[in-house]
Formats: sequence, C-alpha cells, structure tokens
Amino acid sequence: MQPASTDHLSRITIELGDRGYDILIGKGLLGDARTWAGLPRSARALVVTNDAVGPLHARALMDQLAGLHGRVDCLELPDGEAHKDWQTLNLIFDRLLATVSDRKTVLYALGGGVVGDMTGFAAACYMRGIPFVQVPTTLLAQVDSSVGGKTAINHPLGKNMIGAFYQPIRVICDLDLLRTLPARELSAGLAEVIKYGPIADLDFMDWLEPRVARLRSLDMDALGYAVRRSCEIKAAVVAADEREGGLRAILNFGHTFGHAIEAGMGYGTWLHGEAVGCGMVMATELSRRLDLVNAAFVGRVRAMVSAAGLPTVAPHMPASQWMELMQHDKKAEAGSIRFVLVDDRGHADVRPVADDVVLDVISRCTEPAGDAAPAATR
Amino acid sequence: MQPASTDHLSRITIELGDRGYDILIGKGLLGDARTWAGLPRSARALVVTNDAVGPLHARALMDQLAGLHGRVDCLELPDGEAHKDWQTLNLIFDRLLATVSDRKTVLYALGGGVVGDMTGFAAACYMRGIPFVQVPTTLLAQVDSSVGGKTAINHPLGKNMIGAFYQPIRVICDLDLLRTLPARELSAGLAEVIKYGPIADLDFMDWLEPRVARLRSLDMDALGYAVRRSCEIKAAVVAADEREGGLRAILNFGHTFGHAIEAGMGYGTWLHGEAVGCGMVMATELSRRLDLVNAAFVGRVRAMVSAAGLPTVAPHMPASQWMELMQHDKKAEAGSIRFVLVDDRGHADVRPVADDVVLDVISRCTEPAGDAAPAATR
Repeated sequence: MQPASTDHLSRITIELGDRGYDILIGKGLLGDARTWAGLPRSARALVVTNDAVGPLHARALMDQLAGLHGRVDCLELPDGEAHKDWQTLNLIFDRLLATVSDRKTVLYALGGGVVGDMTGFAAACYMRGIPFVQVPTTLLAQVDSSVGGKTAINHPLGKNMIGAFYQPIRVICDLDLLRTLPARELSAGLAEVIKYGPIADLDFMDWLEPRVARLRSLDMDALGYAVRRSCEIKAAVVAADEREGGLRAILNFGHTFGHAIEAGMGYGTWLHGEAVGCGMVMATELSRRLDLVNAAFVGRVRAMVSAAGLPTVAPHMPASQWMELMQHDKKAEAGSIRFVLVDDRGHADVRPVADDVVLDVISRCTEPAGDAAPAATR
Repeated sequence: MQPASTDHLSRITIELGDRGYDILIGKGLLGDARTWAGLPRSARALVVTNDAVGPLHARALMDQLAGLHGRVDCLELPDGEAHKDWQTLNLIFDRLLATVSDRKTVLYALGGGVVGDMTGFAAACYMRGIPFVQVPTTLLAQVDSSVGGKTAINHPLGKNMIGAFYQPIRVICDLDLLRTLPARELSAGLAEVIKYGPIADLDFMDWLEPRVARLRSLDMDALGYAVRRSCEIKAAVVAADEREGGLRAILNFGHTFGHAIEAGMGYGTWLHGEAVGCGMVMATELSRRLDLVNAAFVGRVRAMVSAAGLPTVAPHMPASQWMELMQHDKKAEAGSIRFVLVDDRGHADVRPVADDVVLDVISRCTEPAGDAAPAATR
C-alpha cells in the first residue's frame, strides 16, 4: 500500500443519492478555489465556531466566503463538550433568527466534533433543514465526526441522545488547520484513526502501527494518508447504512465503554477520544474473552493507544454505575447492552454479552479507586 | 360527488417509499383490531398527551396498546400553543431516558396539533429517530397537522422555526374523539378543511359550502367525508413534495398572514385555525387585488370562514410589525415575503407581492385599534 501524496487535493464522494457529498482532504484548502467551487450562493451565511478556534481561523474562512454570500456572520460558542447542550444550541437559533436567515442560508461549522455536531443539528432543525458545510479543525472531526451525518447534543442522562441524521453538503479537511491543535486533542483524534484498523482494515492497522509517533509530530504526508483512509472506510460504511440499521454500529468500537467513562466522569473531564482509546482496549479485551482475538492482538491495540498518548486503563466507577451508564447507550435494546466486538480478520460485529463477562473485563481494565483523571494526562 | 359512508374504516396511503404510511379514518377506530394490525411490537411505548385530552382518552388508548408493548407509560404535557417550546419538549426526553427507552420504543401522540408536532419532533430527535404514531383528537390535527410529517416547536421570534420533516408510521383519525372537542376548537379545525377547496378542489368547495353548519354540529357522515377528502388532498401534495421544495407550500394558504397574527397577539391568544381563517380571507383578498379571483370569490371564502365561527377581520397591529413578523415566515427568501395566492380554477401559487399591495390589503382587513381578541370569540 502506497500512501498518496498530500500536495494535491484528495476527493472522496459519499454516495447517498440526493444527499451525497464530497469530502476534500489536503493542505491549504481554505485558500484553494477548488474548495469552494459548486457550493450554493446565498444572501446570508453563518460561521459557527468556538472561542478557542474562532480567533485562530474564522477570519480566513470568512474572507473566502465573501465571494459566495452577501453577508457572512460569525458566532463563537463556548468551547468544550460540557457546552454541547440545548442552551448553547439555542444561541445558533437566536443568531439565525436575529439576522433574518432563511432556508437558503448556509451554516459553516468551523471547529471540532462539538461544533460540528451542534452546527449540524442546528442546520437539521432550523426551518426543518438548511444546508451546512463541515470545516473540521481537529483530527477527530476530520476522520470521524464530520463525516457521516450524525449530529446531536447531549442530555444530562446520556451523550448524543438528542440529534438527527443530517448530511452536510461538503466536508473540507484542511490539514494545515491541525497545526494549531493542542497535543492532547491530536492524541484524542488518533483514537478514531486507530479504530478503523481492527474493525475494517488490518492492512491499515499494519501501516499505522509504526507511524503513530510520526502522526503525533504532524508529519503531513502521514496525516494526509491517515485522514484519507479513515474517511474512505467511514464513507463506505455510511453509504451502506446511513441510519445505523446495523453495519454502521461497528464504527462505535470502544464507544460503549467510552461513553460510560465520559458520562461517569462528567462530560469534558475525559476527552471523547481519550475515553474511546481506553474503551477500545476494553472492547478488544472483551473480544479476547470471547475467543475472537488472542492476547497478542489485545497487546497491539493497547500499544497503539498508548503510543498515541491515550489512557489504556479505565477510571474507577462502581459496577452498578458502569452497567447503568451503558444501558443508556443507543445500541442497547430493551435494556440489553450490545458491544462492538472485533476478530483477528479485520471484521467487527455487534451483539450482547453476558453481564458477568463484561464486569470481569471492567475490573481487569480499571485502576484502583482514587484518581479520576485520564492516566495519560497526569 | 358522493360522500362515502363512515360506518367502515377508510384507508389513505401516503406514498413516500420506505417512509410511506397509512391514514385510517372512521368511527370507533380505537376499539377496532384493524387499527393496530401491523404496528411494531416493542418492550416500551410512551403515550404523549396533554392535561386536557389525557383524562378523557389516554386510558382507552393505553388499554389497546397493552397488546403491542411490554410497558406503556403516559406523559401529560401542559395544554396549549404557549407550551410548544423546548422546555416542554424536554419533558418527553426526560421521560424517555428515565424509562430507559431505546430505539425501538414507539411514541403515540394523543392530542391536537401541538401534541402531534412536539411528539413528532421528539421522535425525530430521540436517539436520532424512533417510530411514532399520530392519534389526533382535534379536527385540525386530523385534516392537517398529523398528516405530512412536519414537526416543530416555536421560537420566541417565530412559529415552528425549530423542527424536522419526520413521518409517522401511522395516523389514526377516530371521529369519535371529536365528540369531546370544544366548539371553539372544532371551528378552528374547519379553517384547514375550508383551505383545501380554493387551493386544490373547487368541487370540494362546492360540497363544503352548504355543509359548514352540519360539520359544526358533528354530523358524522359529513365529518367523515370532510376528513377523508382533506387528507386525500394533503396526501397527494405531500407525496409530490415531501420537503416543501415548492408545491407543498400551497398548503400554507392563509398562513403567512395567520402566523403574523398568532405571533403578534402572543401564541395561544388566537388559535392557529382562527388566525388561518382570517388569513385566508386576507390572502383571497390579496389574490383579488392581483386579478386572480373576483369579489364574489372573496365573498364565498369569507362566508365559509364566518359560517365556521371564525374571525374574518384581523386584529390591529402597526404595519411595521406585520411586515417584520411576516419576514420570519419560512417561505420568505432573503427578506422577501412570499404569499400563497389562489385563482378561480382551484389552483394556488406562491410568489412575492409588492409591499404597498400587501399593506393595503392589511388595512382593508383590519379592525380599528382597540380589541385584540379574535372577533368570533367575543
């Protein structure tokens, strides 16, 4: 397998009929005319970003949009998963209505997964649906959350509980935007890159395994290939199962445990990618307990997660809290928790697992009571 | 034209591919086994109703659902358009999460347009989409709001601004439920029945014109035909244009003026149907000003609205307030207000109209400053 050069623009088309769209990947995309070709013109546009990313990149984006829209506004939301709630979402609606935005108004999501999820959900709901463009500024958003049309906000009783399947009209993955990403967030994004190997492509896992450090140091050629291959795999899964009827759930590898960690620790304490990294180690260990993979495979996943700078040990929570939090997972049916399990052939499957096996894996993968911060951040 | 008997169940199929569904119309449907045939079974279901309708009909519905679902809960929301907001919507999410509802959980909307819109929007958003069934208890909901998949909540700056296109899996129009409907609400529902004549079917207008009083006295044969023909017309329009690309907007006849009245007077002061009744008189008068219909046609529409017990004269508002409220209408584009206009051949069209013509119609159709309550309710 030969990583493609990232000197030029890569284009991945998501095949969803009249909801299909392109993902563009490359360096310097914001300043590339091809990035903007074919997007709808309209009287108004709104860039939604957060107070960490906005000051760095909003002006460059708005300058480009002046050629497409009569008036371009910018709204900075408070940064962080803790603000992925209705109150913050409503700030978008308030601004859209205050500027007399109509059904042709285009939203641009400039930020990470939180900004993308909230902007996409706002686009899905405002006047029952307006167009939106994803401009992800984190690795996690470029390889995962900005692709596939899942949008949502959190509820106090569960993450991403309120949302919509709603597709963007374009995703613009400008690798240069990753240069301003804090190291902890770059690591968090690597969790979702690592994910694609075990669930779908062991060749990609082989390619990635020795290159995790290079990705952490922003090697642009390696990043370009990692983003492109991640998006290709996700695109294929989403095209086959847009609304998560079955196959798509494999993208949640590590997420059942991960969501429980995020919710249990309080949203924002563990980054999503940190929780998923740890969750993948747990889900792989669960797969081993069911004889789907061997101990060496678990070791490979754990080593990649660790090399990415992510925690591999879960925080202490009472068993009852683990089980209750996982029952709120959206894959659950009638209170029965379902897990994404992997085998050693690059395939994943979703199914329920007996509680005692789950609890045993949790106890093996958990640190003693005491410290609740993710191990890698201490 | 021969009104069908309502002794048996009528079935209208909405053709929307895998989002298609049936509307059932008839007397005694709640107790008819055919009503429930083919609906999905699940561990949990939630009946969402309001504190006016729930005490009258929730028990009868829940008794029927016991055969389909392991556990059936009931949630009573506060009654009225004033509560069609995020806070009330969130009560549905709170209950769904508190009862560990999953993606197979079925929501049943038992009530009028407000309950249907909120339950449908909750179903669209909860875990990004769960199935829901409409059981409309008002005439307005039976002939309009429960059919077609528009769901929404209000925003302080505009009605139905936050919502989704999301189809129910069945609509159950039991005419017997209309027996407990207050007279004022029956009248409000007749506005949407009257609507279908001018925009789509002058034969139906001819049938309806001498029968408005009979409908107000709950003549079940006449009601059955009026509901069926209304649903047929709406179904045909929705099937041709699910997401309001063009044609579907004709269903908003009278609504541009009507929404301005509702918002200007404060949601709940004028009922939606009252505002639409008055708005249809204004929109027909606007059509006359553009030489699309003659004065006699305006007189026929005004007489039907009046016979239905609805106001035909708009409340006093400053011209600037009218224009600003109408700019927030979802049909507006780049601040230009668009109106549904009718001709004398049973066709409707949507287009912008010069402000001076609109303002002249408003001043002709408005009562002097002073009283803000709908005339027919005084």
